[in-house]
Amino acid sequence: MPVGEATWPTMHPISGVRLGVAQAGVKYAGRNDLLVIAIEEGSSVAGVFTQSAFAAAPVLVGRDHIASGDIRYLIVNSGNANACTGERGLEDARTTCQVLAQLGEAKARQVIPFSTGVIGEFLPVEKIVAAIPQALANACEDNWALAGRTIMTTDTRPKGASVQFEFDGEIVSVTGIAKGAGMIRPNMATMLAYIATDAVVAPHVLEAIVKKAADKSFNRITIDGDTSTNDACILIASGQVGLPMLTSTHGELYEKLLAAITEVQQQLAQAIVKDGEGATKFVTIKVEQGTNSHECLQIAYAIAHSPLIKTALYASDPNWGRIVAAIGYAGVKGLDARLVHVWLNDVLIVEHGGRAASYTEAQGASVVTQAEFSIRVALGRGDACEQVWTCDLSHEYVTINAEYRS
Amino acid sequence: MPVGEATWPTMHPISGVRLGVAQAGVKYAGRNDLLVIAIEEGSSVAGVFTQSAFAAAPVLVGRDHIASGDIRYLIVNSGNANACTGERGLEDARTTCQVLAQLGEAKARQVIPFSTGVIGEFLPVEKIVAAIPQALANACEDNWALAGRTIMTTDTRPKGASVQFEFDGEIVSVTGIAKGAGMIRPNMATMLAYIATDAVVAPHVLEAIVKKAADKSFNRITIDGDTSTNDACILIASGQVGLPMLTSTHGELYEKLLAAITEVQQQLAQAIVKDGEGATKFVTIKVEQGTNSHECLQIAYAIAHSPLIKTALYASDPNWGRIVAAIGYAGVKGLDARLVHVWLNDVLIVEHGGRAASYTEAQGASVVTQAEFSIRVALGRGDACEQVWTCDLSHEYVTINAEYRS
Repeated sequence: MPVGEATWPTMHPISGVRLGVAQAGVKYAGRNDLLVIAIEEGSSVAGVFTQSAFAAAPVLVGRDHIASGDIRYLIVNSGNANACTGERGLEDARTTCQVLAQLGEAKARQVIPFSTGVIGEFLPVEKIVAAIPQALANACEDNWALAGRTIMTTDTRPKGASVQFEFDGEIVSVTGIAKGAGMIRPNMATMLAYIATDAVVAPHVLEAIVKKAADKSFNRITIDGDTSTNDACILIASGQVGLPMLTSTHGELYEKLLAAITEVQQQLAQAIVKDGEGATKFVTIKVEQGTNSHECLQIAYAIAHSPLIKTALYASDPNWGRIVAAIGYAGVKGLDARLVHVWLNDVLIVEHGGRAASYTEAQGASVVTQAEFSIRVALGRGDACEQVWTCDLSHEYVTINAEYRS
Repeated sequence: MPVGEATWPTMHPISGVRLGVAQAGVKYAGRNDLLVIAIEEGSSVAGVFTQSAFAAAPVLVGRDHIASGDIRYLIVNSGNANACTGERGLEDARTTCQVLAQLGEAKARQVIPFSTGVIGEFLPVEKIVAAIPQALANACEDNWALAGRTIMTTDTRPKGASVQFEFDGEIVSVTGIAKGAGMIRPNMATMLAYIATDAVVAPHVLEAIVKKAADKSFNRITIDGDTSTNDACILIASGQVGLPMLTSTHGELYEKLLAAITEVQQQLAQAIVKDGEGATKFVTIKVEQGTNSHECLQIAYAIAHSPLIKTALYASDPNWGRIVAAIGYAGVKGLDARLVHVWLNDVLIVEHGGRAASYTEAQGASVVTQAEFSIRVALGRGDACEQVWTCDLSHEYVTINAEYRS
């Protein structure tokens, strides 16, 4: 029951980035569940990973490998998270890297492993290893759609985004896929996302970009406030376009590339929320006029995580009382309720901390019956502004999570 | 669908504390919705109130009045919260105090007002004022049961607790009522609770007791993580028992009284969780071996607020993967996953950060199919320990909150 129509964009291939898939049979039968991404020599690769204290084995191995640079392969399985699997989990993750490296003429530390699925079961390494040759054999630059489907778990549809921009007469492309529909929460790159560009980017600049873009996309979404042990977002710059290397975090090319990558990551992040478990509404929460980003986010997440607000949205109930209650308990010191204003889209519902004089229930209902809308809060105490994206809490969320063993 | 059987304890009357009820017709028809508590002259009264920036009008007025001491009346209506009602809300709260004071031969500032129910609608002051004489007329010391029913909103049953202890040959009684079933979260005295004792207690000691007891009871429960604009807990010491005045926070009498009041408040707090909206399970979450209370609470609340864990509990699914995921993202710095152990009652499910070797699904299932059980987490890094109480997240929670306008 995702929000909105399923659409699949034109995915511009990224020269130097090939994707291959295979049926390893990790958990699902009759579908692809293994993805190998082969990256041309000389590319830059940067990533952000879960900050969980229980980071999964592939995250621990991946952080280690990416630090040494010169990454040539990513390998991703769905159906098993290889999380909370101790020493054996680490060995299993390293084994898949070794086998892929051997077949792909690289070193094990040039491979980053990823797993997503059930927590606490050992990875069926033999099945994965057996499927690697097939994935390598069909790897090609035009495989983004298949790759997007391969990494799905509870997702009801694949998530892809792709944009292009022109610079100095050259066309630069940015293309990405992501997966995730539950256990989603900010403060890290969330779930799995792979974004590639053909721009030529120095590693330290790419690292700055992936963090900045994540803070405006994957780190600004929440479905249920739960953070996974396996979240990762990887950004590849293959350097195949005819432009000089970007070595600075200033200037027009940097700004254009950052904007394009942020746009792709935002589209992917929003697609994850729209496919949120049981979601029927997609809601943008904007908090403005704060004294700093932190307090804007405190209030935005208090609203986004409130089960009372989320169930009201599910019922298409413009329940402004629950919204002001959440603003009130968000923990912002010295907040003056009399300066607070709240809008549903452009309908003013709260002024000076109370129900707006002009507001009618019919106005509010006309907004919240829509599948997509915004809640905007003005705090009247500064210039800071933040936005997060979330969804409602439905009967189906309870059904899915009471039945699925994640 | 509350957890466990509805029971009503023997409620020991508190000499010097009389309770009167009336049908004001604030929102509900054919039931009592107005409570007046008359307090003998010379009693001590202490309280803790919501920390919400949108604290309701009665809370603002009540904080002001209690500061001046010498409280003689509490007046409580259910059905309307008088929250987010601006200046008019403050006037309405003051009017009810004035009318009660006049009829009861006291001053307006010797009355504390309380309201619980719908947010953002003006209080029907005339209806309340008209019902005050009736409530005053039937006020008596034996009315705790009626009072408990009068303050209910979405509660499915009243909450009462009462204990006695002996000191120096005198029997000291502690009796209390509470209401609340949703919008429950820690960091304050939660919802409405009124506890009285006939002990003789100096005001500053009573204030210390109400805060200490709240931190081990109402401030340790959570149903949905939402905090109300109206939460308040009031403790009355009528001083009618034949003992010298307690003027210190040390000594045997202090310890016995603190223990008795904490016991009553814990019973009431736990009764609120058991009556949690849609609750089918009552869960005690203990986190031990932390370096300090703060980090124990971080982890306890991460577990207690996780919709993924709460839906798994609803489904009687011993999903240890979701529990370790919540421990991992709780934000405790430097937590070593390899030292973490988790039990369901006495069943070890996680050892050294992974699935316990001895654990079987059948063992876990035998615990979580029960209506009441505990999740115990040992962090292996210190001596601090905390516990919180929570419930599961069911289809009925969604139904209640998608339909009820709070």
